[in-house]
Amino acid sequence: MTTLPTPVSPFLALAHALADAARVHSLRYFRTPLDVLTKSDESPVTIADREAEAAMRAVLQAQAPMHGILGEEHGRERLDAEYVWVIDPIDGTKSFITGSPLWGTLVALLHQGQPVLGLMDLPVLGERWTGMAGQQAQCNGQPVRASGCEQLTQARIYTTSPDAFGAADWQCFDALSRQCALRRFGGDCYAYAQLAGGHVDLVVEAGLQPYDYLSLVCLVEGAGGRITDWQGRALTVASDGRVVAAATPQLHAQALALLADRAKRDERGELAKA
Amino acid sequence: MTTLPTPVSPFLALAHALADAARVHSLRYFRTPLDVLTKSDESPVTIADREAEAAMRAVLQAQAPMHGILGEEHGRERLDAEYVWVIDPIDGTKSFITGSPLWGTLVALLHQGQPVLGLMDLPVLGERWTGMAGQQAQCNGQPVRASGCEQLTQARIYTTSPDAFGAADWQCFDALSRQCALRRFGGDCYAYAQLAGGHVDLVVEAGLQPYDYLSLVCLVEGAGGRITDWQGRALTVASDGRVVAAATPQLHAQALALLADRAKRDERGELAKA
Repeated sequence: MTTLPTPVSPFLALAHALADAARVHSLRYFRTPLDVLTKSDESPVTIADREAEAAMRAVLQAQAPMHGILGEEHGRERLDAEYVWVIDPIDGTKSFITGSPLWGTLVALLHQGQPVLGLMDLPVLGERWTGMAGQQAQCNGQPVRASGCEQLTQARIYTTSPDAFGAADWQCFDALSRQCALRRFGGDCYAYAQLAGGHVDLVVEAGLQPYDYLSLVCLVEGAGGRITDWQGRALTVASDGRVVAAATPQLHAQALALLADRAKRDERGELAKA
Repeated sequence: MTTLPTPVSPFLALAHALADAARVHSLRYFRTPLDVLTKSDESPVTIADREAEAAMRAVLQAQAPMHGILGEEHGRERLDAEYVWVIDPIDGTKSFITGSPLWGTLVALLHQGQPVLGLMDLPVLGERWTGMAGQQAQCNGQPVRASGCEQLTQARIYTTSPDAFGAADWQCFDALSRQCALRRFGGDCYAYAQLAGGHVDLVVEAGLQPYDYLSLVCLVEGAGGRITDWQGRALTVASDGRVVAAATPQLHAQALALLADRAKRDERGELAKA
């Protein structure tokens, strides 16, 4: 996350407009019978997802026609533009189609490839979380702050599902999370809101897409936390989908060290022999 | 679940009063810093949990002093009474202490050992689910119905966490859930509300306590579903904590058969050799 030379605030209203456009469609279909289709990557897709993204794109085309768009459902446009919006109308489709309220609309704005604004809207919960480069993150307009947890052994860790990890990555997550005070599954994007709000200390995931994680960067860092890939690199469109978010830089460093150690031992075959 | 000879409706008002008493305390502490203690069984306990249960017990002592009480925090009283209330002020303590809204207050009424009334209150979501023997289950006063799903391959299955299973039980759950259309973790008691509402088709868990599952019986069966232990036996105070809830009797039978088959092969050692 970098600090923008020019204020990004004018774009915050546009991000809110995108979330407003999406929720009309998502809420209309929530908890109604759906024809669940299957995409090539096997994740469930709903009519709501597609309609909500189309509505978001219509807003962008009207208000920011020169900006690029990267979306889950309808592909990419002008990714070489100075500003690119990365949108996911319904993050947590499995939650959505099973009637759980823990799904959200995700919006990120990239400036020259770097996240400068993130928004997470939870329509059922009535919570809208926002972060902008260099500014304090907010929930419904109120400032939020991550916990001060600096020790793995005191950390509350979340991930969405064991099924999102490959076998080697799961071993890494499992070893890490067993060091923590508490581990919990489920949550999708909401786990990062819980972290930004100070209620969860660590979120570690794999298999995410750019539209899953790019909106989280300014939110987590604007709350005082730290979020990178598993090697500690800044998250970009080209990241490998493995994400570590922590309440403090100290906790983040400990998590990275443990993941790296485990991965190295795995490569050397020490774990297979053990 | 049996149909009571006399109406249980008079007790429904008392169940609501218990949930009202609990929510005052639980909501006061939700998302505030807590000193999390550790009980002998390692589950997190909060001040909120203990205060809420004390408030529920005070209501019972005032309004039904001859009834028995089985609670998570403050033990058992008069379990040989004709009517026994089974109460859990905060089911999903891990959700509660990590700021997730998916925790609830559970209330069951047993008549001569059999569940005749169940109530699940979700204070943050503003949802109160109720079931009474022989009557249609409701959410906020509106009738609810489980899905018509009769096939494992079309079923949406939930469980709270892999960590709640012993190794052998996990193998059974894993084999079963991989036959399903979708599996999802997280939820605690709310997964059963999702089932009663028609959005989840199967919930399979292990390691539950009587105050976790007894409130669910009338709710699930009043929505047209079926809920038993893994052997198909009715749930009682003495059940072993392994629960199967399904949207239809057909789906329930398929789940039981697969769990039993897997357990038998496990006993014979076929799976270890494979």
